[in-house]
Formats: sequence, C-alpha cells, structure tokens
Amino acid sequence: MPATRDKWRTAIAYGDQHAVVLRGYDLQELVGQVSFAEAFLLLATGELPPPGHAKLLDAMMVSVLDHGIVPSSIVTRYLASAGSPIQAAVAGGVMAFGDTYGGACEQLGQQLAKHVVEMRAGRETEPQAAAAIVGHFVALGRKVPGYGHALHPEGDPRVPHLYRIADANGVTGDHSRLAFAVGAELLRAKGRKLPMNQDGAIGALGLDMNLDWRLLRALAFMPRSAGLAVHAVEEMTREAGWRHVPDEEITYDGPPRRPLGRG
Amino acid sequence: MPATRDKWRTAIAYGDQHAVVLRGYDLQELVGQVSFAEAFLLLATGELPPPGHAKLLDAMMVSVLDHGIVPSSIVTRYLASAGSPIQAAVAGGVMAFGDTYGGACEQLGQQLAKHVVEMRAGRETEPQAAAAIVGHFVALGRKVPGYGHALHPEGDPRVPHLYRIADANGVTGDHSRLAFAVGAELLRAKGRKLPMNQDGAIGALGLDMNLDWRLLRALAFMPRSAGLAVHAVEEMTREAGWRHVPDEEITYDGPPRRPLGRG
Amino acid sequence: MPATRDKWRTAIAYGDQHAVVLRGYDLQELVGQVSFAEAFLLLATGELPPPGHAKLLDAMMVSVLDHGIVPSSIVTRYLASAGSPIQAAVAGGVMAFGDTYGGACEQLGQQLAKHVVEMRAGRETEPQAAAAIVGHFVALGRKVPGYGHALHPEGDPRVPHLYRIADANGVTGDHSRLAFAVGAELLRAKGRKLPMNQDGAIGALGLDMNLDWRLLRALAFMPRSAGLAVHAVEEMTREAGWRHVPDEEITYDGPPRRPLGRG
Amino acid sequence: MPATRDKWRTAIAYGDQHAVVLRGYDLQELVGQVSFAEAFLLLATGELPPPGHAKLLDAMMVSVLDHGIVPSSIVTRYLASAGSPIQAAVAGGVMAFGDTYGGACEQLGQQLAKHVVEMRAGRETEPQAAAAIVGHFVALGRKVPGYGHALHPEGDPRVPHLYRIADANGVTGDHSRLAFAVGAELLRAKGRKLPMNQDGAIGALGLDMNLDWRLLRALAFMPRSAGLAVHAVEEMTREAGWRHVPDEEITYDGPPRRPLGRG
Repeated sequence: MPATRDKWRTAIAYGDQHAVVLRGYDLQELVGQVSFAEAFLLLATGELPPPGHAKLLDAMMVSVLDHGIVPSSIVTRYLASAGSPIQAAVAGGVMAFGDTYGGACEQLGQQLAKHVVEMRAGRETEPQAAAAIVGHFVALGRKVPGYGHALHPEGDPRVPHLYRIADANGVTGDHSRLAFAVGAELLRAKGRKLPMNQDGAIGALGLDMNLDWRLLRALAFMPRSAGLAVHAVEEMTREAGWRHVPDEEITYDGPPRRPLGRG
Repeated sequence: MPATRDKWRTAIAYGDQHAVVLRGYDLQELVGQVSFAEAFLLLATGELPPPGHAKLLDAMMVSVLDHGIVPSSIVTRYLASAGSPIQAAVAGGVMAFGDTYGGACEQLGQQLAKHVVEMRAGRETEPQAAAAIVGHFVALGRKVPGYGHALHPEGDPRVPHLYRIADANGVTGDHSRLAFAVGAELLRAKGRKLPMNQDGAIGALGLDMNLDWRLLRALAFMPRSAGLAVHAVEEMTREAGWRHVPDEEITYDGPPRRPLGRG
Repeated sequence: MPATRDKWRTAIAYGDQHAVVLRGYDLQELVGQVSFAEAFLLLATGELPPPGHAKLLDAMMVSVLDHGIVPSSIVTRYLASAGSPIQAAVAGGVMAFGDTYGGACEQLGQQLAKHVVEMRAGRETEPQAAAAIVGHFVALGRKVPGYGHALHPEGDPRVPHLYRIADANGVTGDHSRLAFAVGAELLRAKGRKLPMNQDGAIGALGLDMNLDWRLLRALAFMPRSAGLAVHAVEEMTREAGWRHVPDEEITYDGPPRRPLGRG
Repeated sequence: MPATRDKWRTAIAYGDQHAVVLRGYDLQELVGQVSFAEAFLLLATGELPPPGHAKLLDAMMVSVLDHGIVPSSIVTRYLASAGSPIQAAVAGGVMAFGDTYGGACEQLGQQLAKHVVEMRAGRETEPQAAAAIVGHFVALGRKVPGYGHALHPEGDPRVPHLYRIADANGVTGDHSRLAFAVGAELLRAKGRKLPMNQDGAIGALGLDMNLDWRLLRALAFMPRSAGLAVHAVEEMTREAGWRHVPDEEITYDGPPRRPLGRG
C-alpha cells in the first residue's frame, strides 16, 4: 500500500492554548458533568450517548476489571518483576488480549455488525443471518466465538446478569437479538446447548451501543489495564528478586548433549 | 537479586469454577452495584472507598481520556497504520507515558507520600516537608515535577476545577495540602509563581484516595488507553496505506556519501 | 480453546548450574566457534546449517539493519523521547512490523511453503503452484505480497544482489524458484511487470534456509532491533525535551465547538 | 521540558529513491561486503570498526542468543499463546530486559564510561576510579551490578572465555581494565571474591568497542530477540490452547469472602 500522508487529521479531539476539545465539547466542561463511560462513548461514537448506555458500559467495565492470575496479569507481573516501569508492564499485559485469549468479542462482533446491516436493508431475515454467521465459522473450521463455556454448559450466569442491566437501561438491540438467534441456530445445527458467553454478550452489547466492531476488544483490555496496574504494584511491593520458573518445572526434549567438534 | 519464587500469590483477586472474587467480593455482585471507579479503588486499596472518592476519580479519568494528536496517540496510530492489532497499537501508546512525558505525578507523588508519613509521625511540619521536597529536586538539578505550565503562567485552570470536585466530595487531604505548600515554597524560593499543574493535582489527589504512589502514573495511562483505542480505529478506518514521513521533513546530517572500498 | 498446560516444555534450550545448552550444544562451545547467523539457524531449525546459509543470512541481516526515519524508528524515537527506557522504546518499534508494513515476507512465505510441499509430493507442477498462489491473493482482493516496487518498476535492484549471494552460497532452492515463477505468472496474468521485491526475496530465501514461515517476519524485525536501539540513543542524546507535532500540522475535522448544556 | 521539535534530524541513515545510506555508505555496497556485526558497529559508532571488534561482537551475540525458559521467553510465549502476532510477542519479551533482570551491564557501564573519562584526563588513577565506583553503589545501598554469581562463587567461567576472544582480537581496553580493578576493589573492601560476571564483561567490552553506555542493554536484548522469535514459533506450533496457570499454583491471601450488602 502506498505511504502518502504527511500531516495529521482527526475528528476525535484537539488541544490549543485555550482548551482541549473532544468531539466539539470543551473537556473542562465535561469533567464533573459527564461520567467517564459517557465521555468514552462520546469519543468513540461522536455523540453523547442515551443515558442508559453509560450505565451499562460502566457495569461492563466492572465485569472485566480483574480476574486474578491470568495470562495478562502474569505477563505484567513478569515485566514488573524484571524491573521495567509500570507503563511497560501494563502494555505487555494488554498485548495478551490476542486473537485466542481476548478476541472472541471482536470476531463475533464483526459478523454481527455485517449481518445487522443486511437485516436492516431487508436483504436477510434474522434466522438467515444467524445461519450465515454459524456457517461462516464452520467453513473456517472454527468454533463460533462467543458461545459455550467449559465450566457452565447450561450457560454463563454473567450473561443474563448483563442483559438484565442492558434491558433496564434500554440498550438491548438488533445486535443482541441476532446474537441470541445465533445461539438458537447453534442448538439446532449442533444438537447441543452452546449458549452465549460473556465475551459474546460484550461484543453484541458494544455494537448495540453503536461502537465500531474494531473497538470491541478494547472493552476488555481498557478496563483490565486498571487491574494490570494493580498487579504490577503488588508485584513490585510484595515480591523480592525477579520472578523465575524453577528448573524442575521445565522439560527439555530437544536433542541430547552433543559435541560441536570444532576448534 | 535472587530468583526464588515458583508459585503465584496475590491478595487482589482469584477465580474458580464458581466465581471471580475481588478483594473478598463476588465480582458478579459488584457488577451493576458499584461503579467502575469504586471497583478500581477497591482493587487498588483493598477496601471499598468512601462515596465521594469514586466521583472524583471518575472526573479525573474524564480529564485525561484524550488530548488529541499527542505522543501517545501518534505512536498508537503509527502502529495501527502498520497493521499491528489494536491491543499492540494501544500498548505502544501506553508506553509513551514515560518519565519525561507522563511521570510527573508519580515523581511528585513519591515525595508527597514519603513526607506525609513524616508529618503524621510528628517528625516534620508542613513547611519543613515542603522545603525538603523542593530541596530534593533542586539537589537533583531538576524542576519540581507537577508545577508550572508553559501556557498558563498564572495557573493551570484545570487544577481549581478538580479541587472544587475534590472538596465537594471530601477527598482533599494531607497530600493535597502539602502539594499546595510546595507551590508556596516554590514562590518563596524562586521568587516567581510556579503553581501546581494538572499532573501535580492528579498525583496529590490520587494519594488522598489512598493509592500507592507507584500506581499514580496509571491514573493517566489507564483512562487514556480508551482514547488510544479510538485513535487506533480512526486510523484504521479513515486513512489508507501506511503512515510515513515525507523525505523533505527529514534532515540527514551524518557523514556524506563515501565509497566502501572493498570487494 | 482449552487452557490445559501448567508446565514448560521446550526443545530449544535449557540452562542448569553447569551450562546453557542450545539444541544439544554447550553454549560456551558455540561462543567463538560458530557465528551468530549459524547459531540462529541452529536454534531455529534444530541443526547447524550448511556453511553457506549463515553467510547469506548475515548479508540479509545487513540489508534490513536500518532504513533511517521510517515508521518503526519513528515509534522508537517518540517512546525514547517520552522517557520510557530503551527496551520499551525498541519494543514499540518492533511492533511496527505489522501486517501492512512488515508482513509481506510472511504472507508470501506461508503460500510458498504450502505449495512447495505440494510440488515435492508430486501433486502440483511449478506453474500450477504459481497460478494457485496468484489466485489465492486475487480471490482475497489483495495484491500479491512481495512483488512490485513503487520506485523500481523494472525491478528492485536489491533482489538480484541477494540472489547473487544466495547462488554463490548454495542456498537458492525450491521456494525461490517458485517465487520467481509467481513473478512470471503475474506478468502473464496482469500483462505488466511486477517483479519480486526485497520482502519477497527474504521470504523465499528464509524458507530455502529451512525456516518456518511463521518466523520469516523476524528476519526483518530482529536485525532492525539493532538499528532501533541506535535511534533510541540518538534521540536521547541529541534531542532536548519531548517530541511533539506542532499544532499547525494537525487538522481537526470533527464537530465544531458546541455547548454541553448541563450543570 | 519543552516540546519544540517538528521535523526529523538524524545522522544514522537515510533513504531516497536511489539508495539507503548508512553513515555515508550505500547499504547495497555493505550487503555481502561487511558482516552484520561490523554494520551494527558502523551504525552505532559512526565508523567502520577495527577488524577484531566485529569478531568479538558476533561472539557476544551468540552468548546471549537464548537461555531457554527465562522471564523474557516466558512473556513471549504467553503472548504468542494468547494469539498476539510474533512482533508483539517478541516485543513483550524484549521488555523483560528491565533494570533488575537485564540492566546490570548498563548500570555498570554508565559508571565505567564516566570514570574512564576522568582517568584519561588525568584526574583519577585506576584505583581511585575503582573505589569511586564501588562507593557509588554502596552509597545507594545496592550491590555493584555486574559482579558475583550465585552458582559460580569462584567466577563466572564465561568471562575468561569472552576475554580470550577479546584479547585475541585486540578489543580489551581501558573500560575492561577498570572493570577488573573494580573486582579487585570489591575483594579488598568486602573481604570476599565477587568476580565480574557475564553482564559486567558485556558492559565493559561494549564500551571498549566505543559504544555509548545507553546502548549496552541492547547487546543483550537485540540478539535475544532472535531467540524470542524461535520461542514464539515453538509455542504457536507445539502447544494447543492458551497457556494458563492451574488454580492449585495460585494462593489468594486477600480478604475472605464477604457480602457486598447493597442492592
């Protein structure tokens, strides 16, 4: 692809000697008047959201704030232990939200967004869209991301809890309805329950809040960056030395010792 | 330092097949009942905060959500433009909160925390503590971090705004009082106004919310990670090709062309 | 996907109180006896390479050592300027080797590797394989990565130079021959010259040195990490303050100033 | 610090439509004529090095290529396992070269560089310089970085090996001599052997090759980035699912379960 740009262009925000302006609003006017969740939705969608959206988003942020010792916090703690500063330790942990570990909401969300466009244009019914989404992932030889949970075969209890809040705040919309239809299609096609899990719910509800599907992964790693910072500080203050794995937990199964036969 | 640890130990959170537990509370119970700012303060300090603290923290998070095209967002946009995924692009931007660009609140905060301990133990008065802090940075040949603003010689207008919210919510405490005393000492010692700026206020107020000084830098980069994610998506969706600097903006002032004289 | 592993298993290297062992060889025996390029190929392929391979790899490493002010070095310099340490500044620059900016050798290499397997099994001829590769990218609506160069329509002069070294050292093999056949097929299918560029050559030659296609991108970012470190130090030592973009180079085209109308 | 710069200035390298030029030399002329180690020293110091320097640097790069399952490779493998791309996984591992785990050569090197300047100016003798360096770290309450080894109280065997190569290639110089004098001073001051370890040797020899002390840490993480890339690919190709720590290896010692008492 060509590299043609030299200057910066943005519709998000700018600052000058008088003010920082976010999507047209003076940041100082926002501070104290709108909540962080509202301000984030303003930044992400271009407009202040309906009142209930920020309440749901704040609750979703709590739901992913921290899950204890998991891949992202392990990475952060190794980096903090090695003596890199907190911004680098947290950055490393954020990178653990890769396609395998943190990408389900984005992968499902991309499909939901695409097919809701089709449905709204009258080119697909909801059952057709649901079948197309399941078919998309089956053709790739992959499980449908955002469905099923190893520990909760009858259903991730966090999902109805999030939807109670979403319904009460008027957020639940076309993307969520399609996401539930995908769950029904999975039951029909596979003959067993694979209900939507929390990743799927976050993806669908993020779209119902008018977020771009490319931003959905951030709904996990942005709040988690707060948890990762707390892990970094706990590692710095409670653990001595640098963290390592003891030899007995490592198996080497490469070639046995051999001479180089040079020199 | 020795590398002695093999297992994981944390007082922050854990998850098992039944629940994720944060500082003793079931995460599901927190979702919808406590705000993200409350939950973060719970995670960071070990206890649910007094009610006003979360209101101030939420306002502080808005104040740093995004400042437009600045070093952190520039890094994120270059990485997004080069085709690295959003978690890597945001991680890169978070790393821009280094000692020069984003470290003032931590550098000041470390000193405030240390001297408030001395004051509370009756070993220092507030003026002694303020003079010690100014002296600490003067001895290092550095400006006192968190004071002065190139565009606002009479004072950063964001500071009184934050303190109106802090006062109204009962947060302002010993660290803030000492921080203002440092400003008075700077006026006395240097003979000119160097009032506290927003970085200083965020450091002092973070300590007044019982945060560890090592965590203060996260009060900037954690909310900003949300803004960085929005920049990444704007770059991905609005700009074609990969971002580069045109040749005419680059000056090479190394050795002139010369032959290798080998081969 | 399930998370089932608890212990570490590797065939690459291990260390104990007596030695570090790489693929069976005592690291101390390697130091001074084998070159870095040889040692890297040992590590990557499991065996010491034929003599010529390391000579070519060393030359390839020189070819990507540094290209001046480009996206990767820009990111590194912003991070160094912001006061993050050199390991974080270089890490940020490495992340600029994303799918758009540094991924061509990997994207082409994955296809070359797959089709050489088919050719060696007698299931495809070289022209069939070349046509399949062109067809693969055409079906995705993408240019074939590793071919064409905006500044050198008649051909990237670095390619014949690398192949002179590769031929002289006995490296050029099936993957390179298929890569040239892809160039011929492009000429046939598109009616214009789109000769292999340096990214394509690095991908094909990396495979001819028995590297896994997943490792090809590292042939660019690993040597470049040396160049990035030099950029970080030049930024730290030659430039004062923190690097920023002046306001006049930024265009804000979002909503115009508007009142919040709250409070 | 002020943010005053708008344009790019470098003495390292530039590229135009005709060539990439490194420190005055056409990169294409360098490819195949100078080794990677030579080219790196050219880039870092501004001039082609004496012949022996590149031989030693190449050997030093081998000595740090890979050490198996250690903090840096653990971080890389967690990130690769989580599905972030290889450039992000390696970047994370590079960040493990922090002040505690990978900074000894830089911390010692900064002092060696400073005091060799004093010695060359005739303001200090070697014993005075050595005593000053030991005193510097004692005053900070820290061990002298680059000396002592838990497993080799009589001396790290890698050090004499590196110095055999350094001596044979005419590299050993003032910085190395001062580094050995620091070891003698440690014996005198502490009454026990704390001989220079590999980190110390790499720092001293890097300075004897005319590298800036700020660049010394890169002598470890740059070659290691090659090893990290191999670990990333082994993780991607040999291990299924995403890597996690089993619950029984995690101890939670925070507050016991408690009710929220809201709602």
